[in-house]
Amino acid sequence: MTDASPPRRRRAGGRAANTARASAHAIDQQPWRLPRNNDRPTEPLPPEGVEAIHRGAMRILSEIGIEFLNNEAVSHLREAGCKTEGQTVFFDPEFVEEMIARAPETFTVTPRNLDRKLVMGGDYMVFGNVSSPPNAWDLERGKRPGDMESYVEFIKLTQYFNCIHFAGGYPVEPIDVHASVRHLDCLFEKLTLTDKVAHAYSLGAERVDDVMEMVRIAGGLTDAEFEATPRMYTNINSVSPLKHDFPMLDGAMRLARRGQPVVVTPFTLAGAMAPVTLSGAVSLSIAEGLAAIALLQWIAPGCPVAIGTFTSNVDMKSGAPAFGTPEYMRATQMTGQMARYYKLPMRASGVCAANVPDGQAMWETSNSLWAGVQAGANMIYHAAGWLEGGLIASPEKFVMDCEVLQQIQRYFEPEMLGTSEDDLAFDAIREVGPGGHYFGCQHTQDRYQDAFYGPFMSDWRNFEAWRLDGAVWTAERAHKTYKAILDEFEPPPMDIAIRDELADFVARRKSEGGAPTDF
Amino acid sequence: MTDASPPRRRRAGGRAANTARASAHAIDQQPWRLPRNNDRPTEPLPPEGVEAIHRGAMRILSEIGIEFLNNEAVSHLREAGCKTEGQTVFFDPEFVEEMIARAPETFTVTPRNLDRKLVMGGDYMVFGNVSSPPNAWDLERGKRPGDMESYVEFIKLTQYFNCIHFAGGYPVEPIDVHASVRHLDCLFEKLTLTDKVAHAYSLGAERVDDVMEMVRIAGGLTDAEFEATPRMYTNINSVSPLKHDFPMLDGAMRLARRGQPVVVTPFTLAGAMAPVTLSGAVSLSIAEGLAAIALLQWIAPGCPVAIGTFTSNVDMKSGAPAFGTPEYMRATQMTGQMARYYKLPMRASGVCAANVPDGQAMWETSNSLWAGVQAGANMIYHAAGWLEGGLIASPEKFVMDCEVLQQIQRYFEPEMLGTSEDDLAFDAIREVGPGGHYFGCQHTQDRYQDAFYGPFMSDWRNFEAWRLDGAVWTAERAHKTYKAILDEFEPPPMDIAIRDELADFVARRKSEGGAPTDF
Repeated sequence: MTDASPPRRRRAGGRAANTARASAHAIDQQPWRLPRNNDRPTEPLPPEGVEAIHRGAMRILSEIGIEFLNNEAVSHLREAGCKTEGQTVFFDPEFVEEMIARAPETFTVTPRNLDRKLVMGGDYMVFGNVSSPPNAWDLERGKRPGDMESYVEFIKLTQYFNCIHFAGGYPVEPIDVHASVRHLDCLFEKLTLTDKVAHAYSLGAERVDDVMEMVRIAGGLTDAEFEATPRMYTNINSVSPLKHDFPMLDGAMRLARRGQPVVVTPFTLAGAMAPVTLSGAVSLSIAEGLAAIALLQWIAPGCPVAIGTFTSNVDMKSGAPAFGTPEYMRATQMTGQMARYYKLPMRASGVCAANVPDGQAMWETSNSLWAGVQAGANMIYHAAGWLEGGLIASPEKFVMDCEVLQQIQRYFEPEMLGTSEDDLAFDAIREVGPGGHYFGCQHTQDRYQDAFYGPFMSDWRNFEAWRLDGAVWTAERAHKTYKAILDEFEPPPMDIAIRDELADFVARRKSEGGAPTDF
Repeated sequence: MTDASPPRRRRAGGRAANTARASAHAIDQQPWRLPRNNDRPTEPLPPEGVEAIHRGAMRILSEIGIEFLNNEAVSHLREAGCKTEGQTVFFDPEFVEEMIARAPETFTVTPRNLDRKLVMGGDYMVFGNVSSPPNAWDLERGKRPGDMESYVEFIKLTQYFNCIHFAGGYPVEPIDVHASVRHLDCLFEKLTLTDKVAHAYSLGAERVDDVMEMVRIAGGLTDAEFEATPRMYTNINSVSPLKHDFPMLDGAMRLARRGQPVVVTPFTLAGAMAPVTLSGAVSLSIAEGLAAIALLQWIAPGCPVAIGTFTSNVDMKSGAPAFGTPEYMRATQMTGQMARYYKLPMRASGVCAANVPDGQAMWETSNSLWAGVQAGANMIYHAAGWLEGGLIASPEKFVMDCEVLQQIQRYFEPEMLGTSEDDLAFDAIREVGPGGHYFGCQHTQDRYQDAFYGPFMSDWRNFEAWRLDGAVWTAERAHKTYKAILDEFEPPPMDIAIRDELADFVARRKSEGGAPTDF
């Protein structure tokens, strides 16, 4: 076997792994911070294009209407003055605009560790783990249905990486735990193994209320304290086209009433659940999103909300969903323009269609993440670990994505852009002179430690050094890193009394049967 | 072996390869076109930052000076009124600005196939092959010194892909051909196997004159026709810091006098050959670039030139050069601001430090290519095939990069951004209604064939279909595609008399000993 061959497992261990184990930490990562994106957004639409999509969305809302498969929601909207026919609600544009204007442009979310508080909106951009794949895949075990062991691994990665700012949905669905109590076990692990902002699935009243209660307990909060400011969030998806289903609306209303944020993210695949044209798909997405936001602002004026985008396209030959495509990028940027038009915080995603963490995975993911940056998105879902259009969570991909996320964080640092006399380095240029070298000069010595981004996953050695060390491809290096991280993982501190209270709550709710599974 | 393992060669053939062979073409690629980038550039510097870098560059030029290791160049500049000390030339800012103002903002380059004419400048963005690696690497043969067999393979890929607009430097250095006649053999292959804009290395009078003569012959041009408009180009690099060497200046002056474009690209690695600060490295790069451009505009007023950027950073722990980093991205964007300030066409690059075409290779390359887009760069060197900081050319990477380049081309298409009544698809949204599907509706049927980007390298199938077909990772798929392309390659047509004249010229110049190799 030569270096020409792709990596094999048996070449993986050895020197690099030993080095990693010998050092104090599996990786040398950037500190926690909330990245701020000061780039002027990329705006593919002219102002009249933004107006056209707005008018398109308003026509959908007022003339076609949105189905709310939730009678409580329908009756609220009827009380608000909306025309209804069965479960279809027609929205007057003035009503929608009045409701949207109630939403805050920016809000905070405060988890049990106050140092992990997030800002949502403005120029902030925060990243979360992959959420909701039914399957896990790694280089050692291959593809398999999600289980609690894998779930816990991903939760540990979510906590470990400082560039992951919130713990989104289940990074993999642990189907070895019964659905009636799964949320109890999952949230117990999430709230004890992480101290970051947590998410609740809007999948039935009991689950939503249980999760809010567990977040309250984990934070050591009274009910009043919990409701005083955002402590967690949910994300709801419409059933595109033109529908919101019962449990999502129910959960969203429960959170909104208690002051907890709701992200509304239609999943509009152009050519399948949405028009084949991007502006058609975006206007449908905006209409569905604003419909839910209008409902929430009616029942809980000023409640924190964000508008999400999940507009991509299908492969028109096979119907397969595609992600990180040029169309995905433009739709994300267009939605960014609409979010600013409505003055709403925006969610986007890090996505790919690739099945394994290879070249395709990284160009698709890079496309989607840079589109998020260019769109001025505030919250990036699935930013680490996503494969196969969201059907697979991979720890190697998680680690590789975190390298890209760290680079985006570094990219945002204004320190890089200084043009002071010192930055311009005129004296150093004179001192070094023609043909000289800058390694040794004082200007370099004063700055070299923090001058440049330091990777933990990119291998910058030349080919010969890389080959001598086993010729390990990126995915294989990521596998070793993920294992090393799990080896050294330590959960964040938690008061033992709070942990006991959480455990008691879980035990009691399990003894009561958990949540019904027939919704 | 399970699907969890990285791909092995022996799993590569089979169904997919047979399918590829059975179809008319190895891949279904986008047609030739000149991409136009209408995105507003990302501008990390405020206007006063641009002014500061300009003033920094002018101070370097006027107070420190640039060494021109070419007496002819020094005497031209002395005649122009510049102060000189030995080979160091000091430039008055007014002189520099006057000279820059002579350069055209936009120019064309016309190769032997008039349909392959390029526009350089404005909103155009064209891509070229990897240039100048000493080594080749592929999955089958591993790493090896460049030879003519590999050179010809890359030249064929350069011609084959419509998203590669110009044939840059040697995609790999064929060291099995003696340096005295290498340029003759290389240009013969390039000019017969491609019909795209070709490049001449500025490495000695004989080489430069030979290549100009061969381009003239290949185009069936008289001397006057050759000189009437740009037909080819050269790229020169400064010897940073603060030096231009003899052969580069000599070649640049030879081309400029005959109206052929010169791209001036300092290679300023921050922390090594340039200050550790980005604005310091960029101001040094700009100073070196403008110095050469001022010379060329003095001796050949209005000659076509472009300013290049190759500002990146080193790993401060090892000194290894890094590429596609956040610093690289910002330096590229900053240089874009400076190029617009000086109204000069701009060159950037597609680069990575990775040794193999894996995940790291693609996130680094994606970073650099998107930085080129954000910078408004007009010409992207090394856009396909680059590995190991430019020391390796890889056909798999070439093919993978072309998928990314095609996506960038698609990303630029204004058709995606329409917001007409038809685009907004209100009637289709009403027709499909809630919970329906858009596959079958007329609005989709009318548009589906061209609605979305169709990949040739991305595999959008689900995991099971992908596994059944051999679980082939991207690099392995790219290997098969590259082989299939070579199998079906046909050179572009060339008049037999012109081909004979080219062959005769090569034979004659070889009999004369080619070019001296002691420069």
